[in-house]
Amino acid sequence: MTLDLAGLVRRARGDEPADLLLKNAQVVNVFAGEVHPADVAVAGDTIIGVGTGWEAREVVDLEGRYVAPGLIDAHVHVESAMVPPREFARAVVPRGVTTVVTDPHEIANVLGLAGVRFMLANARGAPFTMFVNASSCVPATHMETSGAALTAADLASLREEPEVLGLAEVMNFPGVVFGDADVLAKIEAFRDRVMDGHCPGLSGRQLNAYAATGISSDHECTRVEEAREKLRLGLTIFLREATNAHNLRTLLPLVTPENERRFCLCTDDRVPADLLTEGSIDHLVRLAIAVGLSPVTAIRMATLNTAEHFRLRDRGAVAPGRRADLVVFDDLNSPRPDFVYVAGVLAARRGALTPARSAVSAVSALSAAVSNTVRVDWSRVDLRIPAAGRRVRVIGAIPDQIVTGHEIMDAKVESGEAVADPARDLLKMAVIERHGRRGSVGRGFVTGVGLSRGAIAGTVAHDHHNLVVIGADDRSMMTAARAVADAGGGQAVAEGARVLAVLQLPIAGLMSDLPIETVRDRMADLIGAARALGSRLHDPFMAMSFLALEVIPKLKLTGIGLVDVERFAPVPLFVED
Amino acid sequence: MTLDLAGLVRRARGDEPADLLLKNAQVVNVFAGEVHPADVAVAGDTIIGVGTGWEAREVVDLEGRYVAPGLIDAHVHVESAMVPPREFARAVVPRGVTTVVTDPHEIANVLGLAGVRFMLANARGAPFTMFVNASSCVPATHMETSGAALTAADLASLREEPEVLGLAEVMNFPGVVFGDADVLAKIEAFRDRVMDGHCPGLSGRQLNAYAATGISSDHECTRVEEAREKLRLGLTIFLREATNAHNLRTLLPLVTPENERRFCLCTDDRVPADLLTEGSIDHLVRLAIAVGLSPVTAIRMATLNTAEHFRLRDRGAVAPGRRADLVVFDDLNSPRPDFVYVAGVLAARRGALTPARSAVSAVSALSAAVSNTVRVDWSRVDLRIPAAGRRVRVIGAIPDQIVTGHEIMDAKVESGEAVADPARDLLKMAVIERHGRRGSVGRGFVTGVGLSRGAIAGTVAHDHHNLVVIGADDRSMMTAARAVADAGGGQAVAEGARVLAVLQLPIAGLMSDLPIETVRDRMADLIGAARALGSRLHDPFMAMSFLALEVIPKLKLTGIGLVDVERFAPVPLFVED
Repeated sequence: MTLDLAGLVRRARGDEPADLLLKNAQVVNVFAGEVHPADVAVAGDTIIGVGTGWEAREVVDLEGRYVAPGLIDAHVHVESAMVPPREFARAVVPRGVTTVVTDPHEIANVLGLAGVRFMLANARGAPFTMFVNASSCVPATHMETSGAALTAADLASLREEPEVLGLAEVMNFPGVVFGDADVLAKIEAFRDRVMDGHCPGLSGRQLNAYAATGISSDHECTRVEEAREKLRLGLTIFLREATNAHNLRTLLPLVTPENERRFCLCTDDRVPADLLTEGSIDHLVRLAIAVGLSPVTAIRMATLNTAEHFRLRDRGAVAPGRRADLVVFDDLNSPRPDFVYVAGVLAARRGALTPARSAVSAVSALSAAVSNTVRVDWSRVDLRIPAAGRRVRVIGAIPDQIVTGHEIMDAKVESGEAVADPARDLLKMAVIERHGRRGSVGRGFVTGVGLSRGAIAGTVAHDHHNLVVIGADDRSMMTAARAVADAGGGQAVAEGARVLAVLQLPIAGLMSDLPIETVRDRMADLIGAARALGSRLHDPFMAMSFLALEVIPKLKLTGIGLVDVERFAPVPLFVED
Repeated sequence: MTLDLAGLVRRARGDEPADLLLKNAQVVNVFAGEVHPADVAVAGDTIIGVGTGWEAREVVDLEGRYVAPGLIDAHVHVESAMVPPREFARAVVPRGVTTVVTDPHEIANVLGLAGVRFMLANARGAPFTMFVNASSCVPATHMETSGAALTAADLASLREEPEVLGLAEVMNFPGVVFGDADVLAKIEAFRDRVMDGHCPGLSGRQLNAYAATGISSDHECTRVEEAREKLRLGLTIFLREATNAHNLRTLLPLVTPENERRFCLCTDDRVPADLLTEGSIDHLVRLAIAVGLSPVTAIRMATLNTAEHFRLRDRGAVAPGRRADLVVFDDLNSPRPDFVYVAGVLAARRGALTPARSAVSAVSALSAAVSNTVRVDWSRVDLRIPAAGRRVRVIGAIPDQIVTGHEIMDAKVESGEAVADPARDLLKMAVIERHGRRGSVGRGFVTGVGLSRGAIAGTVAHDHHNLVVIGADDRSMMTAARAVADAGGGQAVAEGARVLAVLQLPIAGLMSDLPIETVRDRMADLIGAARALGSRLHDPFMAMSFLALEVIPKLKLTGIGLVDVERFAPVPLFVED
């Protein structure tokens, strides 16, 4: 509840009691850069007092525990947690994350604006704030068929949504630098708002061109020198610890008291197991402290700095007039929230949502608008590859990396067809357009996944999220692919005619309507089943989800065939002799 | 000239030459908190490159000189320089001040919205940016008659002006804390904008109430502990060096690398002599460095911090996409600009505007809208004080302070009238309403000004700017007062029937249409004349301008009589026996 101004000042000056008083706190003061004792008074959803002298309807004696602002995730794709926002909140709010800034570009690639609006609507019931940046690069390129495309006008239509802050990571940095009209139109539409960047390795004049447009952050730095150049040019540096990208330790040596205000923390993409085991931004805060950052600075990077970057003046600090998003914890050197208050209400206690807050996520998120997104005409799907040469280009999967090798291997030809040869770790791969548009099927080969038999398939495949399948034989591949389709999207493992494991992701083929713990367990089952079939990868589904991403070097397979990312052009499967 | 996005990126990536290249610079990088070598490329009004590799139509080799962002004054009443904005710019731009945030509450008290609009229009021709915060407290109180009053609706009407940022210093802090409906209505009208504070000495729950409204700065701190409390509660602290208030040295010990982002620099009020001799924000930067602050931090307080406080994302740093407001100087430990660029154009060189920029200020600012503001019906002005007791309350002027004493002295009675008694330094004072409204005249006595004969008068009298006159006899007082009125406003010294010195301030009775150097010289003449008449004060006109300000303790005289500021109520002149 938000009080009017008169009500706020009456309570703040002490003429009326506050609603909540956290007594005997040690306040992590992100303005003053220090910790000091104080009581914190709250009226409605707002902090009205930091100091002493208030009375309140509810008094909680913190006995010297620390109070910090609610943590803010500067950049996250909620879909990567494979659950919708409300359920995502159930995982992160107990960890102190009370605000996230999300780019819903996974669901946008499947469902366009309808997907974005689903995320907005779903989050509105959740005990946190999910701000949205409008997804700037849907589709990622024109070398693949997505379920939708968002034009500058589409994105501009999102400006009026109260949760929409600005433009999400502009991944098409060549488009910016070389002045692509469509890309510039999107920037023009959000130039008065915050615009996030994504420009791995960009440097020199091209980086200046990128920054000159007003794009003001980057979360893709992998080296200190790269981050230093971007920092100097005015980009806010988001330090990232994703499931698939670990940049925090590498970049922290760049942070000094003189520049720390220009750093924020973000998770980008974290799978359920990582969220449930390590955590979210709370994990990054603890990690940063463990590596040597001062606790106040680490917390500031996760609160005030992020609030300032996103122009959120209503939160990010324990101070009068700010939203009462508060975390209470015991150990300043390793903060683990005992209590989490969201907008003045106790939302989580000792790692779990309160029953009242928890009830919200129990309502199914599944709706017609986001269901039945796997639309494949199976009569047209043919996985066979007529042999057209002796040698083939092969995608080389590299453990724990999203870049791939571009290999050349001898084809195995049987009855005029190029087939998989598991003995040489040469597996067949197919990308089946699943948005009911072209119905195309891209076919090729991959090495490094290491199945000795059977197949894996899934509809999580960045960024187009077509149906990808990898296997040792066509029958297993068809079984796995159809199991995924029958589930309304998801991931599956099959051998021959038998489905060994399935994770249903009926929300856009990306997210489950089950509890995140169940999703985590089924993912473990899937991975176990794939490893039992011989895969040596830590997570073959994660690996597969990037093998069709045509913006990451070197060689990828899309629904229209192989793409040489370094040349940014299609290439034939067979090498000319 | 502002380029479109496509033009910016073409030049930034180097496909077309830049307009200006500052080669071999040492860039004061306020993001990274360091100084590093780089070239700075500019296209149109915008920085497009910081690094190396650009070509440009005009190349300036800086030979290792420093380049910093143009300085920003966080809070200044331009009227205190007694010249209008364009002429003010001529004084401050050569010193590197390229942006100011002004509260035009002096002229607003005389002319209301018309006065504010005059300031806006006049500044539009100037080689700097003058942002305006809407004056929140016009009139300051209801115990005096101003020329105008600004309601919440009046202030809201200014929101559409492109230069209007938010709400200016909310001086009526009791009105905020105790929920005065008119004051809260003004805050409500600007709650989505930046709102500046003014709350000397406010503390504890009342300070929390003030801050809870969203007011986000204070420039009135006089003690470290006061500033520390405000800092902790989220108020940005403006460190002030005004002609009449020196707070920078006192407060600097509070500043640490962990909190410096929460400090800005402001001048508030500086008279022409101080501006021309010491300087503006450049003076504060040098002073802060001399006291021990790191140069990069001092410059950051005068640039990025202020830009961030006021949500000005287009300036405050030397970085691509920011406005090319740049200062070039030799000595990092005592910056004195050699060159000042404003929006990419050389605006000043070695302490003076370039001829092209200078021409603008040569156009007279005088217009009918701001002239003839001294409207006194002299037939109604009677300075005589019928004796109504033996003892009188006397305002005690205190050298270099704006607070006054509240003295009781024996009246000197002649022919039934209480008269001045210069032998005891008991001078008569009158405040003549000059806005053509009530025509009232307040009469009383002052000690501490020290004229042994003659009189001084002036229309600069905070905040109502009525005509104040102080003298040893009524004839001299009338001569001085009428000289001021005949000048259309200003300041004068007279003895008997003879006018000894006059400074004409025909713009609202506050500002001259002459060059600021001339104003400075005439002020010196005035002060000299007053001192020749016996005044011992450093600047008797400055002192006089605060003797009628009914919000500063202890005893003041307004057009409706004596005010006991500590009781916030009128008091009789004569003490009951």
